[in-house]
Amino acid sequence: MGVRKLEHVETPALVVDLARLRANIAGMSTSVRDRGLALRPHVKTHKCLEIAAMQREAGAAGLTVATLSEAEVFAAAGFDDLFVAYPVVPSGAKGERLRRLLDRVRLAVGVDSAAGAAVVARAAQGRPARVVLEIDSGQHRTGVAPPDAVSLAEACAALRLDVEGVFTHGGHSYAGPDAPRAAAIDEGAALTDARTRLVAAGFRVDVVSAGSTPTTGGERPTAVTEERPGSYVFHDRQQLGLGACREEQVALTVAATVVSTHRGRFVVDAGSKALASDRPSWLDGHGTVVDARGSSGPGSTGGTVVSVSEHHGIVEGSTLPPAVGDVVRIVPNHVCTVVNLFEEYVVTEAGRVVDRWPVAARGRNV
Amino acid sequence: MGVRKLEHVETPALVVDLARLRANIAGMSTSVRDRGLALRPHVKTHKCLEIAAMQREAGAAGLTVATLSEAEVFAAAGFDDLFVAYPVVPSGAKGERLRRLLDRVRLAVGVDSAAGAAVVARAAQGRPARVVLEIDSGQHRTGVAPPDAVSLAEACAALRLDVEGVFTHGGHSYAGPDAPRAAAIDEGAALTDARTRLVAAGFRVDVVSAGSTPTTGGERPTAVTEERPGSYVFHDRQQLGLGACREEQVALTVAATVVSTHRGRFVVDAGSKALASDRPSWLDGHGTVVDARGSSGPGSTGGTVVSVSEHHGIVEGSTLPPAVGDVVRIVPNHVCTVVNLFEEYVVTEAGRVVDRWPVAARGRNV
Repeated sequence: MGVRKLEHVETPALVVDLARLRANIAGMSTSVRDRGLALRPHVKTHKCLEIAAMQREAGAAGLTVATLSEAEVFAAAGFDDLFVAYPVVPSGAKGERLRRLLDRVRLAVGVDSAAGAAVVARAAQGRPARVVLEIDSGQHRTGVAPPDAVSLAEACAALRLDVEGVFTHGGHSYAGPDAPRAAAIDEGAALTDARTRLVAAGFRVDVVSAGSTPTTGGERPTAVTEERPGSYVFHDRQQLGLGACREEQVALTVAATVVSTHRGRFVVDAGSKALASDRPSWLDGHGTVVDARGSSGPGSTGGTVVSVSEHHGIVEGSTLPPAVGDVVRIVPNHVCTVVNLFEEYVVTEAGRVVDRWPVAARGRNV
Repeated sequence: MGVRKLEHVETPALVVDLARLRANIAGMSTSVRDRGLALRPHVKTHKCLEIAAMQREAGAAGLTVATLSEAEVFAAAGFDDLFVAYPVVPSGAKGERLRRLLDRVRLAVGVDSAAGAAVVARAAQGRPARVVLEIDSGQHRTGVAPPDAVSLAEACAALRLDVEGVFTHGGHSYAGPDAPRAAAIDEGAALTDARTRLVAAGFRVDVVSAGSTPTTGGERPTAVTEERPGSYVFHDRQQLGLGACREEQVALTVAATVVSTHRGRFVVDAGSKALASDRPSWLDGHGTVVDARGSSGPGSTGGTVVSVSEHHGIVEGSTLPPAVGDVVRIVPNHVCTVVNLFEEYVVTEAGRVVDRWPVAARGRNV
């Protein structure tokens, strides 16, 4: 397709800044490689074959996915080394899907209980199935405490599953601006503890995998082998608030049209069905407008999306509000859930549309 | 397809209780008709052709949609009387889409500013285009105050738009359990005020349209002609909290598999990419588990989804937590954003799967 100006894009739309996306991918790739670690980016953020190809070209060791259906989309496109970083419980028809994936690509899945491992083993029907033990490093969401890694590994071994190693997600890195540094240390400590115990119990531990965008830059003990950040390709308002990126690294915005301007505020056509409703407790509002008329010049601001309903974003605090019909761009709070709401990316360079990429794994959350 | 038990459905899944859905549609239809009002249900809730057909069969006067792309989906399926209850600003390529819809179906669109009306008129290119003026009845989101209805109508008339009437959405009905009654009164008062002024200024006012599920049962002055509820087909945790429905009317749940059971809680595979993150300030948590092992019997409870990440729902408060691999059903906070995350409904009768319906307008939010 030809080059078009952003003003002609139908809104709400998912707009990628290609130069920034490339810089984010290259930057993370270099920084992780320079520290001697493997990079297995989490593609649940972008769900996009074109972006995964860029990550592979930049040296990704494989991809991380959240679900079997994401694995299926990327496997079908030739990505043949996949890790489902989730305690997969492939009961019912999911068992057949797991088998097909095991037959097709190098697949590993997370486990965090003997009961879950038993479902994986039953589904595999004797195929060699790689599992990675999920360790809780302080988020207390899923995963076993490090001392329990050995009994979980033994349960897996008894089920003839191939224990590849351990992984954790220090999701408490998202608890606030001061959280990432401590969460990174927690990830390293929990993984090292679990690894030490497994080695002492006679297990070979090939993979020691940490990951979240806010913790990836943090301190890593020598035991860690792999990083699994996801959001870094685009970043978002949450990553900005956590100090995990700078403004000029934000590579994704939602383009929206101003539809109403009463009562000293303005309303755009991007609400919770475009910006999602994710909002960490430490962050006010649902997005930052980056290019209303008032957003250039010192002391000026485009405003904040202070509330959303399904098709409305209410913007306050713009120093020079735009008019009905103007198109503005919004940095959303949490890019992963936003991407999942759209069918395609509008890819831009220097403010012009240069391509469209499908969100290939959109809704593949099963 | 054959009848299957819910336990074999791949999760997360959108599960409809067909008997309850039918009862909700019949009940609303009867209650609105008995009060002498037209029912124009908002299909942004279900985005589903099969359900819209049931509503039409039960006597719906037409459908309400939120976007031109929703209008396109329903128009293509033969629904020929559509109202876009939104201040539509059809700039750029949306203008061509509006024209095609005007040529094809009986379409009306909302307007809340002369600037927006001018974009509608430009897009229509001389076609007779019906507009309905949005009146602010207290939500203060979009819409003009009743005294400003006349100048807006005059601006529309000067643009040769056909002013059909006025509409409002008393969205402040969602402010808390005490809000719906007062919001219903506000809707009626604002609409009556606007109508009176328009009639006095010589405008014919055919449509006086109020609407939201929590206010539909409320007091209506004689001026009101039409109701536009949406969520009533399914209801949800929010409607329960507002007193807008009873538990036995909840017709949609998200089926989820228990994937982890550590630390006295359990974790299901439905997180923010299945339950969405919508949460009104007056409601704790993101869902109610309705059939964990502990949910039957006096004093027992299935538990509450206390937090979500993308693929994790953390459940606490279950009196007898289920085991890894068990399938539970969750009543989500806000059904409209949940439905938009799924490709299909799993339709059940007496706990057995009897059909699958596509979410035909899923993601059609442009």
